[in-house]
Amino acid sequence: MADELILLDVHVSMFGMRVRVALAEKGIEYEYREENLANKSPLLLEMNPVHKKIPVLIHNGKPISESLIIVQYIDEVWKDKSPLLPSDPYQRAQARFWADFVDKKIFDAGRRIWTRKGEEQEAAKKEFIDALKLLEGELGEKAYFVSKSIAKLVAWAKRCMEKESVSKSLADPKKVYEFVLMLKKKYGFE
Amino acid sequence: MADELILLDVHVSMFGMRVRVALAEKGIEYEYREENLANKSPLLLEMNPVHKKIPVLIHNGKPISESLIIVQYIDEVWKDKSPLLPSDPYQRAQARFWADFVDKKIFDAGRRIWTRKGEEQEAAKKEFIDALKLLEGELGEKAYFVSKSIAKLVAWAKRCMEKESVSKSLADPKKVYEFVLMLKKKYGFE
Repeated sequence: MADELILLDVHVSMFGMRVRVALAEKGIEYEYREENLANKSPLLLEMNPVHKKIPVLIHNGKPISESLIIVQYIDEVWKDKSPLLPSDPYQRAQARFWADFVDKKIFDAGRRIWTRKGEEQEAAKKEFIDALKLLEGELGEKAYFVSKSIAKLVAWAKRCMEKESVSKSLADPKKVYEFVLMLKKKYGFE
Repeated sequence: MADELILLDVHVSMFGMRVRVALAEKGIEYEYREENLANKSPLLLEMNPVHKKIPVLIHNGKPISESLIIVQYIDEVWKDKSPLLPSDPYQRAQARFWADFVDKKIFDAGRRIWTRKGEEQEAAKKEFIDALKLLEGELGEKAYFVSKSIAKLVAWAKRCMEKESVSKSLADPKKVYEFVLMLKKKYGFE
């Protein structure tokens, strides 16, 4: 039986992009379904009753939620092609640490930049820049976070964008910007 | 060369308890070092410069941080004894999902119960109870979260406490209570 794979997602979501990059890296075909967060589908509510959030990957009817958990699931099920995590346990722990760091520091500070004002916003900006500096320090002279060569964050991002699995999976930055503007307006953060 | 293992920890920490249970399940010997969070050791600051938090496992001089990442590291390095995660990728994703749920919902709501007052505290209590109900629903009729048999949360906790790896790794609830009272006083949450 061929695998049935459905991805419930929102195109501008960084968490969704993570999963799309992972699927593309593995060369996996799937059905993409765009969700409307203001009017979530019954399928999304049924498949992720706990968090009610995208992305959700539905594999032969069984749902997997939370982007980093989905990425590890993809890596473990389709393990023969394009490993997403290094094989060495210590390197794996480091990869998990920095992915978790992005969730805990970059995403949260990033959100506070456009949902807060004044001093709180300035503090969030400082945290965001500090977090990027830490990431850049970790990247150091490596081409990617878990391999070797010369670069810094912007060059790393360019290098990632040269991979089709990334460039075709990511949302247009302009769309993300418009989405954030829409949210700011909707929730009164202007 | 024998492995050198040092655990930087605080006895009442639920995150530290997780790591201690994992090490005990695997039967791994290690040096335990109690940290004072009001006066962190230079070693802790050096080994976890990003979060400056316990627990940190130092394995032959190399640090691993964040309790769930440490537990997975332990499982991957000492893989021949007492597997901590199931072998099936879907079951592994489910185990990761519920561990992540505890971090995101139980811990956060639990903290707000003793750091907030009035309406905010009542909301946190409700969230906490709702999260426990979700966990109990997931446990269902199984003995543990990833195996089978009859039980509910309290019975599950008792069953866990019957394992030496758990009972000897956990802090005395009275000590945890006293620690929280001390924190409440220190930070003015009374």
